[in-house]
Amino acid sequence: MPTQHDELIDVPAGLRNVAVTATEIGDVRGQEGFFHYRQYSAIDLAQSRTFEDVWFLFLEGRLPDPDERARFATDVAAMRPLPGELQAVLPAIARAGVRFTPLTGLRAALSHLAAARDMRPLWDLDPVDRRRDATSVCAVVPTVLAALYRLRTGAEPLAPRADLGTAANWLYMVTGEEPPPEHAAAIERYLIATVDHGFNASTFTARVVASSGADLPAAVVAALGAFAGPLHGGAPDRALESIDAIGSRDRIDSWVRPRVESGDRIMGFGHAVYRTEDPRARMLRETALGLGGELAEFAVEVERRVVEILAELKPGRELYANVEFYAGVVMERCGIPRSMFTPTFAVSRTVGWCANILEEATRGKIIRPAARYTGPEAPHPVPAAR
Amino acid sequence: MPTQHDELIDVPAGLRNVAVTATEIGDVRGQEGFFHYRQYSAIDLAQSRTFEDVWFLFLEGRLPDPDERARFATDVAAMRPLPGELQAVLPAIARAGVRFTPLTGLRAALSHLAAARDMRPLWDLDPVDRRRDATSVCAVVPTVLAALYRLRTGAEPLAPRADLGTAANWLYMVTGEEPPPEHAAAIERYLIATVDHGFNASTFTARVVASSGADLPAAVVAALGAFAGPLHGGAPDRALESIDAIGSRDRIDSWVRPRVESGDRIMGFGHAVYRTEDPRARMLRETALGLGGELAEFAVEVERRVVEILAELKPGRELYANVEFYAGVVMERCGIPRSMFTPTFAVSRTVGWCANILEEATRGKIIRPAARYTGPEAPHPVPAAR
Repeated sequence: MPTQHDELIDVPAGLRNVAVTATEIGDVRGQEGFFHYRQYSAIDLAQSRTFEDVWFLFLEGRLPDPDERARFATDVAAMRPLPGELQAVLPAIARAGVRFTPLTGLRAALSHLAAARDMRPLWDLDPVDRRRDATSVCAVVPTVLAALYRLRTGAEPLAPRADLGTAANWLYMVTGEEPPPEHAAAIERYLIATVDHGFNASTFTARVVASSGADLPAAVVAALGAFAGPLHGGAPDRALESIDAIGSRDRIDSWVRPRVESGDRIMGFGHAVYRTEDPRARMLRETALGLGGELAEFAVEVERRVVEILAELKPGRELYANVEFYAGVVMERCGIPRSMFTPTFAVSRTVGWCANILEEATRGKIIRPAARYTGPEAPHPVPAAR
Repeated sequence: MPTQHDELIDVPAGLRNVAVTATEIGDVRGQEGFFHYRQYSAIDLAQSRTFEDVWFLFLEGRLPDPDERARFATDVAAMRPLPGELQAVLPAIARAGVRFTPLTGLRAALSHLAAARDMRPLWDLDPVDRRRDATSVCAVVPTVLAALYRLRTGAEPLAPRADLGTAANWLYMVTGEEPPPEHAAAIERYLIATVDHGFNASTFTARVVASSGADLPAAVVAALGAFAGPLHGGAPDRALESIDAIGSRDRIDSWVRPRVESGDRIMGFGHAVYRTEDPRARMLRETALGLGGELAEFAVEVERRVVEILAELKPGRELYANVEFYAGVVMERCGIPRSMFTPTFAVSRTVGWCANILEEATRGKIIRPAARYTGPEAPHPVPAAR
């Protein structure tokens, strides 16, 4: 009997190395320890441009000229305030369960906003309106996250400040104080370096949803769902917890060695794609050392010994510090509370998701794969209900 | 220079026919016009079992024995009432924008519930707790959808009735009246026949999110996002609008012919996978005719002529009525308002999504594909900001 199975194409588990689409957004070249946004090194961008410049690059495909840059900064600042439709429900969202995090609250808030703002299917919008939806969602995400954090901790949400860039305004809304310029610059570098990073599960989720033509927040909320999974990675607080647990130079070996020997993963080390040092870790190490302080010095010491121990106990595996290791150090130094480390990551990654959503929306072809049925042969007669 | 590109595996656009995973949930054999849940014909199940039996089959992998059947019905009925955490926010959600639909509201409500109920990552739960989360989400979805519909139309939400099965209770909560048994039976058949149908974009989205280990509602909300896309399909109201627009027997040809000639799709006809009659359409045609009434008779007439015209104007394309065509006829006949046609579909499909989420959660391998970068060569020097 002919079945659809005959035509199925088998691929590696988890779609590993399967090129599901073409993209002009960027790429990760894991063997080289290099990644880029459009045609530019992401690290070069982080060291020479503003977050808004890079955001514009993702949405428009090119860096802004001076006029565009000024206009984009004005547009974005105007889109930051908490929408009135959310002011009524945000306190209720923030009062949710014991395990509440601003990121779970953000999923509820953006879902509500999609309905309240009548955000239309991408399929019904022209490219200008799609970019407007994308820009407004990315602009409002930090405001919502900071408001949820403050509501949860019993503080009043702070109105965003139009005179600050995304990074400085984020620090202001979270901590309640205008940050020193070196903190804003450090977080700006972190945000730029984490906008996008290949087809991780959340970015891919965003594209699958966008391929159906859904509204933009639907795709962002779906990506946030994948982002919440423990297998996704992206939790800079966990790496910092390891540094804390080690506590002092003389305890590094006795903490790390038994864990590696028993097969535990050391948080903050190793990466699915890089076979070299993670270029984001290198940049953030320099950033952390530039800010000064004991934590950065100690982190460098921990990194050096962990890499040595991993090379000794897992020869050939090439395990190095990843972005999370120094991200936590930099955020801690800049006064971001640990519960807001992963939300800080989400602030930048939302821009990357939106660029992927906009690119996918131009394709007009739904992502609809197949599966190989491996259960008992069908049809088997249905037994009568007794 | 070596890049990661060397290893990429190319596949058809949209992952068409790519077997992304193995599954024991079911399969669609498009060439045969046959689909099954586990080892049973889905149509046979729809004609001989209750929705709860099939729901149990999806979650547990086998049909219930009499004790399990009674216990499952009791458990599900107990999980139906609107959670207290939602009672406060649901009116605010229902007051959202002009284009509000119960399905956009459901995304907000389930996101809120995930936080309020402290639903844990699938990765942190044992199989029993995962099934409990899945059952409770599937049980509460109809209650939330009906409550949003009634709030939106200015009516009071109705408490679910534990003495009714899922289909009868759904009709009761939406229409406010206990349905005649033949209406409940017709909707029950529809619900059973639409629980699952291969790796469509929403089911695949649910599995990608679940593969990251996220909480169950995150995966369901992501699936609902894809489900909202106009390219996803699943809008039985659109097919009925065509029947209405045709209006009378003598206008079928003059309405259909120019549309087919100008390349427009006739809603309710054609399917991505079936090359035969859609087996769901066949069953629902019989169901509609069994319920009686002019609409069913007229729909059969329309179907007959449209299939003839399609065969004449698009020879070899094998376009037949799909599930949507008769689903709308059956739902209209049973008194479901048109704005609740697609939400009715979501009531059953949520059970299918959850079974897929549970299966994916046992794999422990994140779905992380790749993309082929086709933009300008990198790195290109970053121009100085002026």
